[in-house]
Amino acid sequence: MQTEIINTGSELMLGRVLNTHQQWLCRQLSDLGYGVTRQVAVSDEGSRIQTAVRESLVRADLIITTGGLGPTSDDRTRDLIAEMLGADLVCNEEILSCITHFFTSRQRRMPESTKIQAMIPRGAVVLMNAHGTAPGLIMQVPSGKFRAAATWLVMLPGPPRELRPMFTEQIVPWLRDTLPCESEFVCRTLKTTGLGESRVEELIAPHLKHLTDAGLELGYCARVGEVDLRFVARGCGAAQNVAEAESISRRLMADFIYGADDDQLETVIVRLLTDRKQTLALAESCTGGFIANRITNVPGASAVLWGGAVSYANEAKTKWLGVNPATLATHGAVSEATAREMAEGARRIAGSDFAISVTGIAGPDGGTPEKPVGTVFIGMATPQSITVQKFQNRFDRETFKYVTSQQALEMLRRELRHK
Amino acid sequence: MQTEIINTGSELMLGRVLNTHQQWLCRQLSDLGYGVTRQVAVSDEGSRIQTAVRESLVRADLIITTGGLGPTSDDRTRDLIAEMLGADLVCNEEILSCITHFFTSRQRRMPESTKIQAMIPRGAVVLMNAHGTAPGLIMQVPSGKFRAAATWLVMLPGPPRELRPMFTEQIVPWLRDTLPCESEFVCRTLKTTGLGESRVEELIAPHLKHLTDAGLELGYCARVGEVDLRFVARGCGAAQNVAEAESISRRLMADFIYGADDDQLETVIVRLLTDRKQTLALAESCTGGFIANRITNVPGASAVLWGGAVSYANEAKTKWLGVNPATLATHGAVSEATAREMAEGARRIAGSDFAISVTGIAGPDGGTPEKPVGTVFIGMATPQSITVQKFQNRFDRETFKYVTSQQALEMLRRELRHK
Repeated sequence: MQTEIINTGSELMLGRVLNTHQQWLCRQLSDLGYGVTRQVAVSDEGSRIQTAVRESLVRADLIITTGGLGPTSDDRTRDLIAEMLGADLVCNEEILSCITHFFTSRQRRMPESTKIQAMIPRGAVVLMNAHGTAPGLIMQVPSGKFRAAATWLVMLPGPPRELRPMFTEQIVPWLRDTLPCESEFVCRTLKTTGLGESRVEELIAPHLKHLTDAGLELGYCARVGEVDLRFVARGCGAAQNVAEAESISRRLMADFIYGADDDQLETVIVRLLTDRKQTLALAESCTGGFIANRITNVPGASAVLWGGAVSYANEAKTKWLGVNPATLATHGAVSEATAREMAEGARRIAGSDFAISVTGIAGPDGGTPEKPVGTVFIGMATPQSITVQKFQNRFDRETFKYVTSQQALEMLRRELRHK
Repeated sequence: MQTEIINTGSELMLGRVLNTHQQWLCRQLSDLGYGVTRQVAVSDEGSRIQTAVRESLVRADLIITTGGLGPTSDDRTRDLIAEMLGADLVCNEEILSCITHFFTSRQRRMPESTKIQAMIPRGAVVLMNAHGTAPGLIMQVPSGKFRAAATWLVMLPGPPRELRPMFTEQIVPWLRDTLPCESEFVCRTLKTTGLGESRVEELIAPHLKHLTDAGLELGYCARVGEVDLRFVARGCGAAQNVAEAESISRRLMADFIYGADDDQLETVIVRLLTDRKQTLALAESCTGGFIANRITNVPGASAVLWGGAVSYANEAKTKWLGVNPATLATHGAVSEATAREMAEGARRIAGSDFAISVTGIAGPDGGTPEKPVGTVFIGMATPQSITVQKFQNRFDRETFKYVTSQQALEMLRRELRHK
């Protein structure tokens, strides 16, 4: 079965907006067993949407378009597809009353242009939009028109918080009914840190040869400071082959694997601390709250995180963390001594089991010959000891924060894992 | 001129990785005047890469591929394109010595498989990779082979921190020399908040008709709590038409416009505070450091941000922010009274001009009938007063944090803008 995604929108082609639909839809579809064979993005201009849809209609059993269903003049997907398929647009009274209700219930005046969203290609199935005014649409393009078989064409609205519930609540049950998936499909990702991509392959690939010979696909994805190792299998025995590959890889890579699938270091940390009924405090300077933000993205974080001080000013380090002003004067804010006192102070004030501290120079300015941009000290206070490690993370500001947070969380993970 | 981007990688089609290359490359190329006409993503499997490249070769003057140049067995772009174009792979000694140096300088053993990255299609221009081992490649596909004109085919490595500097430092000068851009191109985005998408269009479109008739394109992109308004013009007079459209829109929408292009509320806040030589402290509970993280993403934030307390535990609110334990006992942590004391305490302890506080229920758990998930109080302490606003932000956890941070930053922006 061939599935294709077409993302429409000039903002995508101008690079003004990140296309998150691709990942989200590909993930949902592949987890349901529908492999996406191609994704295409085109602008709203001229005939580009029609050209892209026409090409997909020759190949695909299922096409999902995103965007272009809204009320403004650049929302052209619905009209262009209806025109191409020779379908009239007819007013759907149910949608019109939903749109009217959307505005009256919010006590907002309804702009005239929003009515266009009730104009539906004749014969299309309407997907109601619980979070906006543009309905989704399903049309069947009959066999013989563009290729021998028929094609299902699904149009979804562009805003993620309209598209996602519409997909989950309406498209998934429809897909299961209309295009049931026969073949088993299993995808498993192991998240590793501390080894390069080719080293990961060298370590495990020879030991998985009997499985890859049997059809298991191996994938490697290098990220900053991390490598994702991916197993994909289809058909009979898929789950068993993936499970065996995982078990062999875990034995060979042991501690370099920190999680699987959607795990991130913060989810692993919250899980480990929750299991151990222990707590954490944070003292962040150069990461500016990024570590606290990552930890608090995890539901249930409030059970393990006492709090975090974003101690940008020196005075914040003394007032909130009890850092000795003499330490700051003698060693500077970016120093092993300050990192040590920040971690120790955070743990003492919070009464937590652990504390992590970070102080460094994120850049682009503020570097010196002895402490260039990228210099960072990470401190960890545990019930037994305080340790500080120094790193050189020479990246742009946001990558610096990410890499530094990874190092800090990994220090804590290794501590939590072994005790 | 037709420019197409082809992103390769099974991790993209399985939805395991977000494709950030599309936005980044489209943005760079459009700012240089090269409009991207199509972007395609395909997996590493079978003949998909060759099929996608072959189709683009029929249409495009410039094709940029990403990914598949690395050392592992799923890195197939280089080999598949060479095979399709009938080019031998030959070993490039300079690259081989760079790869060897990459490992020896890091005191790491060089896995045998990494050598494959020195195998280059005969005749290709090599782009050295300062941040990894896989070189980029440029090949010219001669006229008459796939279409009448010649096509330039550029292959870039997948990791963003290898691709981006390679593009900026090597591709941009090469493009300017090889495919100079004749036509003027201007794109300007105004960032608005507080109005719906169709209301924005209704407000401005009738007043810009003389410009849209002259070829100006208007675009609208609805985001959570925001609408981007975009002007695009090409050719003679483009800059002047866009400037006029901006000026008319600013007059009509005034305070609803908070910035332009890459502005985010945090960049605007840091700019306004810097201009006014004023400072800020933060007291975050449910946003968990997200606001501090946004502010500290802005270079120069250290001049205006004193610090922020991520006061998750009640004790963190009393110790770091001086919230009265009786207030917490009487009104609860999520209350107007607590938000008020958090903002007031943060401002007093920091000695800053302003403080923002946030306390609420991010969910998924923790709601009650009186204070359901999504309830949030945002406090703002200024030299003159303390105000608290209540919002209901019923979203998933990360969207909740984003929407709440937007409301908090917008409260501060409106305060800073008018005084």
